[in-house]
Amino acid sequence: MNTDTRPLTLNEDRLFPPEPTQRAIARRLYAQVAHLPIISPHGHTDPSWFAGNAPFPNATELLLVPDHYVFRMLYSQGIDLDALGIPRADGSRTDVDPREAWRLFASNFHLFRGTPSSLWLNHVFHDVFGLRVRLDAATADQYYDTITIALQTPEFRPRALFERFNIEVIATTESPLDPLQHHAAIRDSGWSGRVITAYRPDSVIDPEHEQFADALHHFGELTGEDVHDWDGYLRAHRQRRAFFASMGATSSDHGHPSCATADLPPAEARALFERIVRGRFSAADAEAFRGQMLTEMAAMSLDDGLVMQIHPGCFRNHNHGLFERFGRDKGADIPLHTDYVHALKPLLDRFGNAPGFRLILFTLDESTYARELAPLAGHYPCLFLGPAWWFHDAPEGMWRFREQTLSSAGFYNTVGFNDDTRAFLSIPARHDVARRVDCAFLAKLVAEHRLDEDAAVEVAVDLAYRLPKEAYNL
Amino acid sequence: MNTDTRPLTLNEDRLFPPEPTQRAIARRLYAQVAHLPIISPHGHTDPSWFAGNAPFPNATELLLVPDHYVFRMLYSQGIDLDALGIPRADGSRTDVDPREAWRLFASNFHLFRGTPSSLWLNHVFHDVFGLRVRLDAATADQYYDTITIALQTPEFRPRALFERFNIEVIATTESPLDPLQHHAAIRDSGWSGRVITAYRPDSVIDPEHEQFADALHHFGELTGEDVHDWDGYLRAHRQRRAFFASMGATSSDHGHPSCATADLPPAEARALFERIVRGRFSAADAEAFRGQMLTEMAAMSLDDGLVMQIHPGCFRNHNHGLFERFGRDKGADIPLHTDYVHALKPLLDRFGNAPGFRLILFTLDESTYARELAPLAGHYPCLFLGPAWWFHDAPEGMWRFREQTLSSAGFYNTVGFNDDTRAFLSIPARHDVARRVDCAFLAKLVAEHRLDEDAAVEVAVDLAYRLPKEAYNL
Amino acid sequence: MNTDTRPLTLNEDRLFPPEPTQRAIARRLYAQVAHLPIISPHGHTDPSWFAGNAPFPNATELLLVPDHYVFRMLYSQGIDLDALGIPRADGSRTDVDPREAWRLFASNFHLFRGTPSSLWLNHVFHDVFGLRVRLDAATADQYYDTITIALQTPEFRPRALFERFNIEVIATTESPLDPLQHHAAIRDSGWSGRVITAYRPDSVIDPEHEQFADALHHFGELTGEDVHDWDGYLRAHRQRRAFFASMGATSSDHGHPSCATADLPPAEARALFERIVRGRFSAADAEAFRGQMLTEMAAMSLDDGLVMQIHPGCFRNHNHGLFERFGRDKGADIPLHTDYVHALKPLLDRFGNAPGFRLILFTLDESTYARELAPLAGHYPCLFLGPAWWFHDAPEGMWRFREQTLSSAGFYNTVGFNDDTRAFLSIPARHDVARRVDCAFLAKLVAEHRLDEDAAVEVAVDLAYRLPKEAYNL
Repeated sequence: MNTDTRPLTLNEDRLFPPEPTQRAIARRLYAQVAHLPIISPHGHTDPSWFAGNAPFPNATELLLVPDHYVFRMLYSQGIDLDALGIPRADGSRTDVDPREAWRLFASNFHLFRGTPSSLWLNHVFHDVFGLRVRLDAATADQYYDTITIALQTPEFRPRALFERFNIEVIATTESPLDPLQHHAAIRDSGWSGRVITAYRPDSVIDPEHEQFADALHHFGELTGEDVHDWDGYLRAHRQRRAFFASMGATSSDHGHPSCATADLPPAEARALFERIVRGRFSAADAEAFRGQMLTEMAAMSLDDGLVMQIHPGCFRNHNHGLFERFGRDKGADIPLHTDYVHALKPLLDRFGNAPGFRLILFTLDESTYARELAPLAGHYPCLFLGPAWWFHDAPEGMWRFREQTLSSAGFYNTVGFNDDTRAFLSIPARHDVARRVDCAFLAKLVAEHRLDEDAAVEVAVDLAYRLPKEAYNL
Repeated sequence: MNTDTRPLTLNEDRLFPPEPTQRAIARRLYAQVAHLPIISPHGHTDPSWFAGNAPFPNATELLLVPDHYVFRMLYSQGIDLDALGIPRADGSRTDVDPREAWRLFASNFHLFRGTPSSLWLNHVFHDVFGLRVRLDAATADQYYDTITIALQTPEFRPRALFERFNIEVIATTESPLDPLQHHAAIRDSGWSGRVITAYRPDSVIDPEHEQFADALHHFGELTGEDVHDWDGYLRAHRQRRAFFASMGATSSDHGHPSCATADLPPAEARALFERIVRGRFSAADAEAFRGQMLTEMAAMSLDDGLVMQIHPGCFRNHNHGLFERFGRDKGADIPLHTDYVHALKPLLDRFGNAPGFRLILFTLDESTYARELAPLAGHYPCLFLGPAWWFHDAPEGMWRFREQTLSSAGFYNTVGFNDDTRAFLSIPARHDVARRVDCAFLAKLVAEHRLDEDAAVEVAVDLAYRLPKEAYNL
Repeated sequence: MNTDTRPLTLNEDRLFPPEPTQRAIARRLYAQVAHLPIISPHGHTDPSWFAGNAPFPNATELLLVPDHYVFRMLYSQGIDLDALGIPRADGSRTDVDPREAWRLFASNFHLFRGTPSSLWLNHVFHDVFGLRVRLDAATADQYYDTITIALQTPEFRPRALFERFNIEVIATTESPLDPLQHHAAIRDSGWSGRVITAYRPDSVIDPEHEQFADALHHFGELTGEDVHDWDGYLRAHRQRRAFFASMGATSSDHGHPSCATADLPPAEARALFERIVRGRFSAADAEAFRGQMLTEMAAMSLDDGLVMQIHPGCFRNHNHGLFERFGRDKGADIPLHTDYVHALKPLLDRFGNAPGFRLILFTLDESTYARELAPLAGHYPCLFLGPAWWFHDAPEGMWRFREQTLSSAGFYNTVGFNDDTRAFLSIPARHDVARRVDCAFLAKLVAEHRLDEDAAVEVAVDLAYRLPKEAYNL
């Protein structure tokens, strides 16, 4: 498409309002938060990177293969995942040269114009790798070589990058079945980086998960509990939550198709569980069980202090053919219309006013921001709003989040930013985007004389640093 | 949080676009509407204030206790309503010093940064009470004393404030069971202030209202009709509507959980009513009955000329535990996904093209603005759109209302602003915000060369003054 | 309302951001696309205009009577359609003087302030007819005479306007029952204008269409197939699609109440069809049959290469009384809440990854942009997003479309602009609005340093010209 070499710049005013008054205010606010340490309370980096501290292999393996934001866009324009070196569901890979895959990506980089991926990637190219020409077909090899060579140097090992990125704490996400040996290795290594885990029990809670039966079996072996008995099953969760907490976890996370909760009488809950473990359950049973388990998790939160997160509203693996070939998490998860008002009522009727309980809600259905989520969070003491998430973590999505939640929830029922990423190198870029957008948003309020600038500085710092620490007990 | 005394200012350009061209236009437009009298066709002020003209007791009783926008935000951050002096459901109150409650509010005033409550309150503090330092822990007592002392002076009595606020007409909202003695007292007092009522029959229409049976009994006593008979029940409504109209009412108002309407054959409507009054009805019956009554109210509107308003889509008293302790209207009402297209069809099939019929629709589900409400109002002669309401009456909500309704409904199928408040002192602030936002919105259209400035002036005046008078027959 | 003569201007910077930096960028981008030929791949102009090239009769018949955007707004303010000369359902018309109808329109032209109709009409008045005063009661006759006299001159014949408008290709929309004689006449005339058709089979697919039985009968006669047999019915579609393609069609278009698709086993599809043709079907059957036919149309697309379009989510003819009097398409179509994620799954499971298949999706439910449509189009290779459509084709709607689809779908899974209009004279105005809004949107990205200006120029040209040509195989 464009074969001339064109300069890559990273303007220091990027994402600030072009109007000079607001831009000047945004700059002043941003100066107060730009260099604050990164708090990353929710994400999907791989703890083995920090445990082993091995070098990343090459540009393609680091930046293209693990990033479903990137390869789904390429796929949407007819580029086959095999040609990009994405592993098949059975673990096999086509024999594709990573440099060829990179060239294919580079020659289609115009597809990302205006997207958050382009913001993040250009930030990484410019600031992490020092590149000063834009990525396209003509510069593909220069990029591939520059990045791949750098990765072999000590400065680009995971721990060195962690320190360079000024990360104060990062949470990974693990299944209850995970032995957390990498977290143990990090702790035992003497390295000062703070890498904690989070309790994500979907695979042992969702009866419709394809690995549920196996996962449940493993859950029993690991805990020594009879997890096919309702009381034993709940005890196993308590045990693993305690273990996760001992490894630094301060939160649990629940990625359900809906936000449905349930609070069944004990006998009904037990009977439901028995249908589930015998494999004789309806779709409604599965939904009810997931809902019941959210309330059970809330009950455990009150005891062990883990902050609860719900990430609902996604139709996972929507593309059947692609799922058969390539498995989960290949960019084919599609958001759904999501209800919170009725869905959360059972859980809130039980714990909505419980002192110390904290439940952070996320959404992929923006129509709920002003209608449901902000009014709920602006009333219930336990509820807080997670940031604009996943498909909505672009500057526009972050801006809509603030515009639609501010009036009913204010700033102080929100919890700052989550990067929620497995793309480690993009973490500074993502936090920088969030800080810039919040400063731009605050600058508008100041310029419209709705907020004094000294107060806006306090809010900016709160959003960038204080609120995520408080909300996640970090 | 912030304990230094910081200046409180009320910039004359607040809420105007920071960009100079638009700001200059907005100023010129606003100059034409800033001093127009206030038309307040829908609200919840207490007519006894204007009948008795007694002084308001103190800052806490005036500004904190009755304002569920304010105390719900404090509650959302874990502050108990008892500590704020909010009355319990049984009428009891904890023995809290109002000054202590005020201090608690003041020391948490940062929670309101960026919210409409802070806009309104700061306007009241600055313009009504002449305060020039910001409210926080350090200034709490200064505020409490300044306000409480002022309230004992003649200039702060309700009628004096009404006149100072340049209110041309204000509507309160009463149940059919209300004897309207305060309205009669105002009328008989010789005072020139125009305070009218509005007919809000929810408690005698909604079979699921906890007071329905008692209210119905009272309704029969008051009217002398056999309200347990369908014809008598309808006659009772006609009688009370006529009485309300004689006391100045020009509108009825209906706050239903959904916008469902029904138009049953007479025999079915009668049979439904019989199930309702015998207390043997399903949830579907209750919904059908509310829907049928909207159509009956429309039929009466055609006869008596009361303008009809529907405020649908709220899950009332969502917090069960709080409802038990503190009763209704404690900030726990949460908006719902709302349908209008199917819901209104029965009523519109009957009266949608009836000359002279006027039905003003409100929403708490902004996803309906562009999809349903603006196309409906941009077609049906009877339909008009009420302003951004309740959770959406912040500047952002007002802006979204205009952006999403303009193209299909224009300006002239909307009815100007409603303050819809029981916070009497905030009324000038609320109308000022609405006028400023409309002027800012119009300034953008002018600056983008989509509307001539002379036409924008006409629209600004229409929105601030002419349209609400026309729409509500005032 | 306003009776003074006021100047009509068409500012060259209209719709550009008022802030100078962005405005300057927008100007530079627009300069690259302002004069590109018009690609109009989807619309409702009448091919007989170009076949016969007869003059349009007068201002009212040209600009008022066929434009339901215009007369629905007048109707919404209580102006009867009879008084505007709109034909009744039975074909009769009241004996209204077209000049009187025009005066009524003119004296209510303030209703359109801020709407897209006012943008388009003022553009037509200014640029096509050279008018320099605004339309209102005082200038109504001047307008009527100027326009009506111009229409009698050769320069205002349809073909001359087509050439003056710089239309490279325009698609009309026809039923399978249409003999396409006007398209044949255009082809045979030797005139160089490219006017193609599109296959719109709703009337022979939707069992709930009031003309379905007759249409099906006619479909059989026209094709010589036994269309009451499932195989014959499908062959008839294939035959007509081939004929349409031979007359230039490159697309089919499907205007269904929902986006539901189905992929039934052959025996079930056959049985369903038999219930349909015998007229013994439920509403669920009708919905299933429409859904099945979308999948059948997709299957035929893979064979004959016609690009498929779905325009779902409208409650047609919502105003029962008006439908009885005036028939279809009288401004009473109201959008509906629309689901895509579940609805499209059957079709996508079958053809979602099929090379070469192209399906363009439209919506009237903006809540689906960020939640469903952009994530779907940003993943599936076959899916593309049609532009902001119908009630959403105002500048605000176009802006929201870009803001809400950019992050997940980028620019390159969208297909540029469709005017979708029967208002021929407004076509340049509509494309101009779309180009200006896209340039304004891109200017913001450039000014916020998210996109380099040279890349923005490429995107602007792609959106205005290249993408619609590619997407529709033109």
